[in-house]
Amino acid sequence: MKNKKIVIVGGVAGGASAATRLRRLDENAQITIFERTGYVSYANCGLPYYVGGVIEDADELTLQTPDSFWERFRIDVRTKHEVMSIDTEKKTVMVCGLETGKVFEESYDKLILAPGAKAFIPNIPGIDSKNVFTLRTVEDTFRIRDYVVSASPKSAVVVGGGFIGIEVAENLRKMGVDVTIVEASNQLMNTLDYDMATLVHTKLRSKGVDIRLDSTVSSIEECKSHEEKKADNSKPADRMSSESKLSVVLRDKTRIETDMVLMAVGVTPESNLAKEAGFKLGIRDSIVVNEKMETSVADIYAVGDAVQVKNTVTGKYSLISLAGPANKQGRIVADNICGIESTFEGSLGSSVIKVFDLTVASTGITEKRADVEGIDYDKVVLSPMSHAGYYPGGHVLTMKVVYEKVTKKILGAQIIGFSGVDKRIDVIATAISAGMKADKLKELDLAYAPPFSSAKDPVNMAGFMIENVESGIVKQFYWEDINRLTGDDSVTILDARTSEEYDSGHVEGALHIPVDDLRERKEEIDKSKPLYVYCQSGLRSYIACRILAQEGYDCYNLSGGYRFYSMVKKEINLVKKSFPCGMDKE
Amino acid sequence: MKNKKIVIVGGVAGGASAATRLRRLDENAQITIFERTGYVSYANCGLPYYVGGVIEDADELTLQTPDSFWERFRIDVRTKHEVMSIDTEKKTVMVCGLETGKVFEESYDKLILAPGAKAFIPNIPGIDSKNVFTLRTVEDTFRIRDYVVSASPKSAVVVGGGFIGIEVAENLRKMGVDVTIVEASNQLMNTLDYDMATLVHTKLRSKGVDIRLDSTVSSIEECKSHEEKKADNSKPADRMSSESKLSVVLRDKTRIETDMVLMAVGVTPESNLAKEAGFKLGIRDSIVVNEKMETSVADIYAVGDAVQVKNTVTGKYSLISLAGPANKQGRIVADNICGIESTFEGSLGSSVIKVFDLTVASTGITEKRADVEGIDYDKVVLSPMSHAGYYPGGHVLTMKVVYEKVTKKILGAQIIGFSGVDKRIDVIATAISAGMKADKLKELDLAYAPPFSSAKDPVNMAGFMIENVESGIVKQFYWEDINRLTGDDSVTILDARTSEEYDSGHVEGALHIPVDDLRERKEEIDKSKPLYVYCQSGLRSYIACRILAQEGYDCYNLSGGYRFYSMVKKEINLVKKSFPCGMDKE
Repeated sequence: MKNKKIVIVGGVAGGASAATRLRRLDENAQITIFERTGYVSYANCGLPYYVGGVIEDADELTLQTPDSFWERFRIDVRTKHEVMSIDTEKKTVMVCGLETGKVFEESYDKLILAPGAKAFIPNIPGIDSKNVFTLRTVEDTFRIRDYVVSASPKSAVVVGGGFIGIEVAENLRKMGVDVTIVEASNQLMNTLDYDMATLVHTKLRSKGVDIRLDSTVSSIEECKSHEEKKADNSKPADRMSSESKLSVVLRDKTRIETDMVLMAVGVTPESNLAKEAGFKLGIRDSIVVNEKMETSVADIYAVGDAVQVKNTVTGKYSLISLAGPANKQGRIVADNICGIESTFEGSLGSSVIKVFDLTVASTGITEKRADVEGIDYDKVVLSPMSHAGYYPGGHVLTMKVVYEKVTKKILGAQIIGFSGVDKRIDVIATAISAGMKADKLKELDLAYAPPFSSAKDPVNMAGFMIENVESGIVKQFYWEDINRLTGDDSVTILDARTSEEYDSGHVEGALHIPVDDLRERKEEIDKSKPLYVYCQSGLRSYIACRILAQEGYDCYNLSGGYRFYSMVKKEINLVKKSFPCGMDKE
Repeated sequence: MKNKKIVIVGGVAGGASAATRLRRLDENAQITIFERTGYVSYANCGLPYYVGGVIEDADELTLQTPDSFWERFRIDVRTKHEVMSIDTEKKTVMVCGLETGKVFEESYDKLILAPGAKAFIPNIPGIDSKNVFTLRTVEDTFRIRDYVVSASPKSAVVVGGGFIGIEVAENLRKMGVDVTIVEASNQLMNTLDYDMATLVHTKLRSKGVDIRLDSTVSSIEECKSHEEKKADNSKPADRMSSESKLSVVLRDKTRIETDMVLMAVGVTPESNLAKEAGFKLGIRDSIVVNEKMETSVADIYAVGDAVQVKNTVTGKYSLISLAGPANKQGRIVADNICGIESTFEGSLGSSVIKVFDLTVASTGITEKRADVEGIDYDKVVLSPMSHAGYYPGGHVLTMKVVYEKVTKKILGAQIIGFSGVDKRIDVIATAISAGMKADKLKELDLAYAPPFSSAKDPVNMAGFMIENVESGIVKQFYWEDINRLTGDDSVTILDARTSEEYDSGHVEGALHIPVDDLRERKEEIDKSKPLYVYCQSGLRSYIACRILAQEGYDCYNLSGGYRFYSMVKKEINLVKKSFPCGMDKE
């Protein structure tokens, strides 16, 4: 039998995974990777941390080399080689050596497309200015790192508030750079709902990051450089001061003077090759693949950021640019090429990001998405401790679990906190993958000792709460309802906290009766009106609701409590105040 | 309808959970808790940390009081009240007020037994000596804390190497006390297999804890006290020196001089009440309950350490003394009493413990247990990084996953490391609960960013490895096999590591060919003999196996690699050296 010849386009997550698994399965296959950049199998997700010097050694990012791939795997990696076109009839690709300019043809038995995605670059005036960067490749990273080290910029504008934008913002901020994030939507991180995202906004602002929401860049203007200015007039220049070199102009005419700009507004599948060869394309021209990661063309597979994948929760196709699925898909392709039946069942889009000392994680879909999908959902919001309160070092988690009402299917979760966040997201991701019902979370037998959790783990608590809601033991209302309710005479709002808590801030017009006084003082509450009860976290108000509901009151418990409401409200007010009537705050 | 009268025996985890849930479900029920100790709903699992001063404030342990239970829940908590007997016909209990000595009768509609377990005290001479302690209650804790603070003991013997023994050992060691753990079996922590437990032994020894395995205490002798000795002779005594006051005599006649002894050899269900009232009893006289937590007697429920529960993995009954299941059971009882159908499906025995800077966690069953159960199992042992290697602060995890061969059912997992241990155990616990097959672990879409994990999470890696084993892509051998293989001329042992690694330690008689040289040098290996390959972690040797197996070699990969083998071997040799032919090392 002739040895299989496999050509792989792109040698990072999916491509490299496919190649090495192929070798392990087939010692005799001829495996060639063409990688457009100068690096193979590099630490993609580590790039922002090299910019900030958290990862100090460039070699850490680029542990694998064409040589190491050859030594260990007999995989022929050609970096700085771009595949220009595919002839699906002849089963060949045209390749251009980017350093030599030499174009040659390479045949394949199986072709794997792992070209990734490219940074989306909006077509605006000045986008090609000096010191406007993107961050996708090792080369991009070195370029930015060289600039920040050599030029010591004082300010930076990051356009786009997704993972890369936020990670770079943090890294630059830690170097003392004044960072402004410009984001087109009303929130950063579209993996979160607006309310959860406000916690991220607050953290970033507290670290001195300026956030401009609902803002888009209309142009970037280059200012005269320091040297040019110096030449212009004879005024003695302060040699230490570095003047801003760029002016970022927003749609509302606001100008932000800055030394550098990072464009991180999102990515687009690198599907030109596939498009030109007539492949079936999907969302935003991504490559369509089946469960085996086969494209519409025989003997050609595709993986990673370039393909559309099924969202496990909605069953619909979407673009999920994450390393985890890409690596898994690479392995699946190798299996299928070598005759091992293997399928990719979909992605939950589970993600986690460090935002200074915060950890922000999510899995499945948001409320927002559930709305769009027309799913009849409900949610619980809770603020449990990351571990037993009596053991030092615990922190409050803010946790939202969204589930489908009738089926109790878990739709997704979002958790923000300091420690133990990633653990709970991974547990819920596992529960979703396994098709576990939301109220079954209460039964999970999770490992407990005081330094790690509570006897009732936060995930169990979410399960208890969901069961209580679904069985009608408690009815909920939400922070979104409070504005409407405060002006409504036909309802009562009850604050069930202590006097100290009430005095330090409460919902306007709320009646105040601490939960422990409620049995004696319940007559003060009008039984004919619906009663909206809150406490700090939602636990005491739940008890209050139970006490009063059994007495015939029509009670609703504030989901997430005053704590969540006030955190979100603070941010909303800040936004309102900063940009009254759409005005610029500067 | 008459208000229900519910009596609860025991007010800690299960009893308190039942009581508060009962109140939330039924505002009119009359709920009384009789608690033998002076404290209610206390932080049971925090007690060892109060001994060592990690938890500084006693109030942290005892946040709840009879008053607070009354204030919030109208639950009548009678501490220092012991229930003496149950009249199941009359539906009454006889109660003794321990301070007053007054005995009275209390009727119930529903009775919940949550008496917990008591420290098992072996019947040995001297067990009642002064400064011999147990640790179950707040009172025990205060007693020990008072002693260590006032008497500043220099040495302690902890008898029993389970959770409490180890936690107290750590806490005492951190106070500068010389601690010896005496353990009857050949390993500490029976939630682990022997090989994994050796990592715990090594850690404890490295922190100066002396461990005596295969040792039991035959007697405890009181020495003459310092003052008595002073009176005896006129030699001037050094006022600062404190002499040992106890001598712990082991079965092999070894004597360990010590200031204090903690008996932590295990617990026994507190089932006397149930026994005397003729309840059906199970393992070690635990109380038998059905899924609704009903005992064999009408209207009487039991929860917590006193009952036997079904092990989710084996389907058999066992005793699991952990707070998590107790709390869940309490809630389930309350539900059932209030007409909400609710069942306890069993426990995985998931647990986690801090051992100095190590985290040690497990879920499901060990190999040991699988052997006893006659299950045809296999295992993978891996040592992945807790997060991406290129991001600072990651640590190696040592991880074992045990699964049933034919069904691929996950039987259990054990993980030891510094960070990210509890996360992976909880994910696997969730997977087991959901009935997920072992190879499906590879598909889990877990949250990844460099500070938190790797694109292929350790749990995914375990899934990949299990799939490879089960599909025959790789065959394994284990550290237990090496002794036998080193003396066997009919096999080849191959070290696939670098020369530096080989030189710093290797298996005796191993042929050394680094994996990257293997394709050129494979002729040096005798194809007619089975080939046992190892590298440091098992990854390179897996690649070596794949290279050679395809060339017709009969290859086996060392599970866990040289790293795991050498860690276990070091400990075995240490034990052998310390106790040659059963001799005492002193």
